[in-house]
Amino acid sequence: MTFDLVAHDPQTKARAGVLTTDHGTIQTPIFMPVGTAGSVKAVHQREVKEDINAQIILGNTYHLYLRPGLDTLRKAGGLHKFNGWDRPILTDSGGYQVYSLSETRKIKEEGVKFRSHIDGSHHLFTPEGVMDIQRVIGADIIMAFDECTPWPCEYDYARKSMDMTHRWLKRCIERIDSTEPLYGYEQQLFPIVQGSTFRDLRKQSAEFIAAQGRAGNAIGGLSVGEPAELMYEMTELCCDILPADKPRYLMGVGTPANILENIALGVDMFDCVLPTRNARNGMLFTTQGIINIKNKKWEQDFSPIDEELGGYASTFYSKSYVRHLFHASEYLAGMVSSVHNLTFYLWLVRNAREQILAGTFREWKEKMVKQLMVRL
Amino acid sequence: MTFDLVAHDPQTKARAGVLTTDHGTIQTPIFMPVGTAGSVKAVHQREVKEDINAQIILGNTYHLYLRPGLDTLRKAGGLHKFNGWDRPILTDSGGYQVYSLSETRKIKEEGVKFRSHIDGSHHLFTPEGVMDIQRVIGADIIMAFDECTPWPCEYDYARKSMDMTHRWLKRCIERIDSTEPLYGYEQQLFPIVQGSTFRDLRKQSAEFIAAQGRAGNAIGGLSVGEPAELMYEMTELCCDILPADKPRYLMGVGTPANILENIALGVDMFDCVLPTRNARNGMLFTTQGIINIKNKKWEQDFSPIDEELGGYASTFYSKSYVRHLFHASEYLAGMVSSVHNLTFYLWLVRNAREQILAGTFREWKEKMVKQLMVRL
Repeated sequence: MTFDLVAHDPQTKARAGVLTTDHGTIQTPIFMPVGTAGSVKAVHQREVKEDINAQIILGNTYHLYLRPGLDTLRKAGGLHKFNGWDRPILTDSGGYQVYSLSETRKIKEEGVKFRSHIDGSHHLFTPEGVMDIQRVIGADIIMAFDECTPWPCEYDYARKSMDMTHRWLKRCIERIDSTEPLYGYEQQLFPIVQGSTFRDLRKQSAEFIAAQGRAGNAIGGLSVGEPAELMYEMTELCCDILPADKPRYLMGVGTPANILENIALGVDMFDCVLPTRNARNGMLFTTQGIINIKNKKWEQDFSPIDEELGGYASTFYSKSYVRHLFHASEYLAGMVSSVHNLTFYLWLVRNAREQILAGTFREWKEKMVKQLMVRL
Repeated sequence: MTFDLVAHDPQTKARAGVLTTDHGTIQTPIFMPVGTAGSVKAVHQREVKEDINAQIILGNTYHLYLRPGLDTLRKAGGLHKFNGWDRPILTDSGGYQVYSLSETRKIKEEGVKFRSHIDGSHHLFTPEGVMDIQRVIGADIIMAFDECTPWPCEYDYARKSMDMTHRWLKRCIERIDSTEPLYGYEQQLFPIVQGSTFRDLRKQSAEFIAAQGRAGNAIGGLSVGEPAELMYEMTELCCDILPADKPRYLMGVGTPANILENIALGVDMFDCVLPTRNARNGMLFTTQGIINIKNKKWEQDFSPIDEELGGYASTFYSKSYVRHLFHASEYLAGMVSSVHNLTFYLWLVRNAREQILAGTFREWKEKMVKQLMVRL
């Protein structure tokens, strides 16, 4: 896995790069659609590739471990073979879901004991075990097992949690470096900066992560309820410490404005359920602003969802029709909206990249942040 | 609208024809996917056309009248413009849904008073009103307003109901013949044979319908719970009376076996919610037989859903993956299964047509009826 920086924006810290994996290259900055259980919700694999033009998608270790389970994934030859997605895959470590979804969980030095939200069965995630699971899933990018602290968080808890995340990271590294990929292609571990919203902890964590010298680095524990300005402050602090020649991945972020602001601070990779989850609730992100497609306002608006954006879903279906689909509780409502929102998110990062290459990113970003967040 | 018969099977009453409408031609025998509220459930319009190769779809008068409503449909320029489907559309008359879905309904000579299943509002469907509604929807083929009797049904009730359906038909014809299409293309009325499962009533009704000399004719009130043999008996009786030079449409039928048997009796057109509804419940119709994809049996079967069938959904996704999608309650489960089942249904009628053209339909049908209904 290699990362080549091809341009720096002269007026911000934004960069354009190319991340090369055994499943193909990724043009950064990039947004990664979330395919929790091996499916980007309500979207066919063909559409993820050909309509949305996604270059990499996410899989979720917690969900995939519970269902379909490791035996099936191993026999399938990994997640790529199982779901038919032949471009890169990144898997999160499952930590976040263990904390947010499982019925009971106990965090100890060894790892996290939890009960499945599906059938109540007991499980233990350890740093070593989670590395092994991601080997079986066959992700191109494997995330370290960490604790994602809630916000707000006591300083003392944040510090202790960060220290444990660092100790867990050493165990993750030891395991990854002493095992081999199962399917013949390279798998790289990205460690994760924690430290809540405390500057000294974030600094300490970013320095610790940077020192590991891995192929890429991530910033976790943000976009968990803190004000956007605080998120940007932490992102900037981390980006300034994390190595410039490695990709930086900001986990779980965010709105179109969040993405553009964080690109300006030096982030290269993003993922978020927002475009797909909000799509299923009728919130559409467009090049002109945000649409709540269920509103009466769109009842007889027969114009396409987003003519300027282009692409099948956004130009074929009218606002009036999609509004009708939501009111009639049709499957197609969530399907059209999901393809549209993801097409928009990939359009957003593709355009950000072009603006960085052209040296015009800052001005464009200032304009877009306002335009894209307008409620139409 | 013209109907040209291009071949007759030498050993059965099966025929192959071409039905020409202002929205294009339909190769018969044909299966029409059901798009109740203007959307074939869980399937993009592009897939209905390009993957499934549907030549005509159904819309539902009752649903479309209630939602999005006539004002929106008229302003959109009809259903074709509203949902973006540019091939032929047939609308049922709404009668069946009034009886099965609405909270209360009162059948009188004038028409049917009912309350919306959505908001409880009061409505009246009359033969004239239903013709006007279908003019607004803009269907290429408009169905007469009838009463679909339940099964079993008292002889006396069936006779009285049939007589009223005939009187309603005269009113439908008068209305259609004294009004014009709204959008510049031809709309043709198909009357419907009723009479439950009583031979003398069916004969009387088929003769009455045949005498109207419309562009096509339908057989209703079957596949409502009666044994298949009784359905076939009634279909044959009706087909033998209905004009040979007009398309015959058997409403709401059925399983793959039902379709093949009825083609053999002279039916040209079919519709049914079975392929899409069962798809959403995990029942897949394949060229090798019927699969309950949720079963443990398919957990680690990584072969495509149906290699022989061809097409994106049926060959790209594995049985194991689709089973996983159902167990994980993913949108994609119903999406893949719906495209697959409809692809299968269109494959079925396309192959039936080819066999009729080749003069080999009977033998093929006997084999397929057994093969397709096997539980795998």
